[in-house]
Amino acid sequence: MKKLINAVDDVLKESLEGFAAAHHDLVRVSHEPTYVARAHAPVKDKVALISGGGSGHEPLHGGFVGYGMLDAACPGQVFTSPTPDQMLAAAGAVDGGAGVLFIVKNYTGDVMNFEMAAEMLTGEHARVLTNDDVAVEDSTYTSGRRGVAGTVVVEKIVGAAAEAGADLAACKALGDRLNAATGSMGVALTSCTVPAAGGPTFQIGDDEMEMGVGIHGEPGRKRVRLAAADAIAEEMLGAIGHALGPKSGERVLLFVNGFGATPLMELYLMFHAAARLCADRGLTVARSLVGNYTTSLDMAGCSLTVTRLDDQLIELWDAPVHTPALRWGR
Amino acid sequence: MKKLINAVDDVLKESLEGFAAAHHDLVRVSHEPTYVARAHAPVKDKVALISGGGSGHEPLHGGFVGYGMLDAACPGQVFTSPTPDQMLAAAGAVDGGAGVLFIVKNYTGDVMNFEMAAEMLTGEHARVLTNDDVAVEDSTYTSGRRGVAGTVVVEKIVGAAAEAGADLAACKALGDRLNAATGSMGVALTSCTVPAAGGPTFQIGDDEMEMGVGIHGEPGRKRVRLAAADAIAEEMLGAIGHALGPKSGERVLLFVNGFGATPLMELYLMFHAAARLCADRGLTVARSLVGNYTTSLDMAGCSLTVTRLDDQLIELWDAPVHTPALRWGR
Repeated sequence: MKKLINAVDDVLKESLEGFAAAHHDLVRVSHEPTYVARAHAPVKDKVALISGGGSGHEPLHGGFVGYGMLDAACPGQVFTSPTPDQMLAAAGAVDGGAGVLFIVKNYTGDVMNFEMAAEMLTGEHARVLTNDDVAVEDSTYTSGRRGVAGTVVVEKIVGAAAEAGADLAACKALGDRLNAATGSMGVALTSCTVPAAGGPTFQIGDDEMEMGVGIHGEPGRKRVRLAAADAIAEEMLGAIGHALGPKSGERVLLFVNGFGATPLMELYLMFHAAARLCADRGLTVARSLVGNYTTSLDMAGCSLTVTRLDDQLIELWDAPVHTPALRWGR
Repeated sequence: MKKLINAVDDVLKESLEGFAAAHHDLVRVSHEPTYVARAHAPVKDKVALISGGGSGHEPLHGGFVGYGMLDAACPGQVFTSPTPDQMLAAAGAVDGGAGVLFIVKNYTGDVMNFEMAAEMLTGEHARVLTNDDVAVEDSTYTSGRRGVAGTVVVEKIVGAAAEAGADLAACKALGDRLNAATGSMGVALTSCTVPAAGGPTFQIGDDEMEMGVGIHGEPGRKRVRLAAADAIAEEMLGAIGHALGPKSGERVLLFVNGFGATPLMELYLMFHAAARLCADRGLTVARSLVGNYTTSLDMAGCSLTVTRLDDQLIELWDAPVHTPALRWGR
């Protein structure tokens, strides 16, 4: 294992301390229990958005805490669910009196822990469960479809609505609608390596790819020979299109997400391939995002995410956002 | 070689087309000769900043084209200098009548080609040469020190000055002063792989690191056993400190730059290590940047960059910037 770390047990804490120091104008990090919150929280009378999950997917979720997006994020150990005490502490810190919306990726551990936190929470609260990964039903850590990079789109757009004053029910309804309008699929060229494990999560041949991989290196649909970028994009968009059923003439958000070790040059090349395929199907790529936003440590590969858009969603996507990892407007 | 590409010869073109499509609100890409320019260029009466160099370092330089930073960038093939015709075409497209400032990383090919372009240019022009890499004198592609991630700092701060109306002489003087106030050093844990080469640029053992590596995988100071993050940060900051000589009580910009395959988690951990060492030396980390900004394709590792700051440099760093890869303010 080759990593820029000190002791394996200190990776999360030291990384979060670096994150807090680098972005002290935007966020603060609390320890024991661990959560990331906006530097100026709570925001009075605004629905508080809280997400979280295992670490190793940075910038998800801590990198999306800030104006126009999340109020707090609860990082677990690498690829390990955070615990209810973290969620309760985060809720206590950021609830501005308009209730708490938990945005939870569909993994069994995350779902269970966020449910336990919700049961203990006295204030008003609701939950949006993301399950945008169209690759497989039921997986290593999941019952049903997995929640992956589409979660970023949900957090951005619901975050904008909450900032604009939407109430808890409206935020939840918007999040559910967005999740249903969003599909993703990934491909891995190499494995990731979890620091505490000390070696690769899975073995893969020099000429192979894992099509439909999960963001923890979970198996996808099939292990096949590495194909050309155009063919990979076509297979992924085909699967997403099958699940989402966008109609010719519709506007979409196209999001190419790197898993961590794939150069930006290749991500833009994948965007080029995917955007042309969208055009071929009569879809207008009205908005786009390219970069490492939902990673799997040092895995090489990427995912494609498509969200069906309308005027309201575009307006909310364009609204100002001011977080460590996503920043525009204002 | 495992890459998300189609034909090797089409990598740059397809990637640039994806880049142009994803950021059509900010930039446009011209082909034959190839350059990236602001979507709205030239800017009348503003000094035009043009940079360029081999591709494979994305987002450098095309990702820094936009308001408050570069006016144009000339990408060569991967790790290959762009040619004078690209620079002349870019200058023609973005010169707003106040002259052109070329920002050139110190590599023999880049220096030669930008000099040829400058000789052919009839309008007023000047050059800033960056050579912030303190690791070695003279290297595979360089006479003298190499220009690396510190170039981003030069482009940001001189870009802000140009936007505020500084004339060509002032922009050049500021760039030269910034370069002298900036030092960098890198470490590689793995090699990069150039698409056209088809295999790793260099071999490195499972327990080794290349200390002082260049951004094309050039040899650094020594090949040694992989050390802990704290020890790596200490060695790199020691070398930078030796070259820059910052005094106790000074403010600095601390920039942790990922080479492409190192997770954000590790980059923040390195920031934590480096920021503590700065504090130990009495330096105030007044501004910071953490992420993949000057990459070496899929190389694992990172560089540290330190810039000695003053009130003017801080104000220019904080000024609005609106590019694909760096965006704040406004």
